[in-house]
Amino acid sequence: MFRKILFPIDFSETAFKALEYIKHMKKTDSEEVILLHVIHRRVIETIAKFEVGRYEVSKKESLAEAEKRIEIERIERLQPIVDELEKLGFKVKARVEKGVPIKSILAVEKEEQVSVTVIGSHGKENLTELFMGSVSEGVIRRSKNPVLVVKRDSKVT
Amino acid sequence: MFRKILFPIDFSETAFKALEYIKHMKKTDSEEVILLHVIHRRVIETIAKFEVGRYEVSKKESLAEAEKRIEIERIERLQPIVDELEKLGFKVKARVEKGVPIKSILAVEKEEQVSVTVIGSHGKENLTELFMGSVSEGVIRRSKNPVLVVKRDSKVT
Repeated sequence: MFRKILFPIDFSETAFKALEYIKHMKKTDSEEVILLHVIHRRVIETIAKFEVGRYEVSKKESLAEAEKRIEIERIERLQPIVDELEKLGFKVKARVEKGVPIKSILAVEKEEQVSVTVIGSHGKENLTELFMGSVSEGVIRRSKNPVLVVKRDSKVT
Repeated sequence: MFRKILFPIDFSETAFKALEYIKHMKKTDSEEVILLHVIHRRVIETIAKFEVGRYEVSKKESLAEAEKRIEIERIERLQPIVDELEKLGFKVKARVEKGVPIKSILAVEKEEQVSVTVIGSHGKENLTELFMGSVSEGVIRRSKNPVLVVKRDSKVT
């Protein structure tokens, strides 16, 4: 029932809360975790423009180059989570996709034939959270799988 | 993490699908299930009027009498589920509340300090499903707990 878990991760605090629940699910029949980070096509340019300090984007860097660099950076950020889950005995696959988050998540659910999706649900205190919140709501509404929704305010006890 | 499970149940096929997941969660640290059936105040009169055959409502039966009778009938319908979960080793509490479903579910979540809510989510093919769907969406949006949403189309494998 929880054999193959899809974990869409945006590296937020809420996503790391969701990760704690995935680790806990290892006690059932969980075997495999698909880590999925989706880079929204339309935000890549924004990131390239505004996160200059962080990504050291020069004005000469093309959008394609920025995209590639951001992709590599995200793959690197997934690695410690892959290691952590593998140590617990999970089989782990990490995927970084470029696209529209809801669509990519639903496509991977189908392609990987996952048993359950575990997703963090943000509050809506700022624009980013408003955006992320709508991703989790869209996944909940349109997924064919069971979805475990972990809230920002959830106490992990 | 899944110690105390709240299970709002409307006796639909989707709710019974959600029940299968609860049984599965026994393999983790789950100890207790709160079964909660909410009778919407405003639908009691409708039930009394339209489900005449099923409930054998005579026109002389008062709303209060119909309410009491429906409540007893719902408690009886919970009993086999209580028995089934107890056999699996769960501590079980069954509650039938009259009120507005979302509000009642959120109030019980808080009162019982549950760890996780497991809820069936209907499609929206007819008016009842439209109504029930909005209950699960309201709970997901406003709950402070993690919520496991089991879809009508979920394959229990």
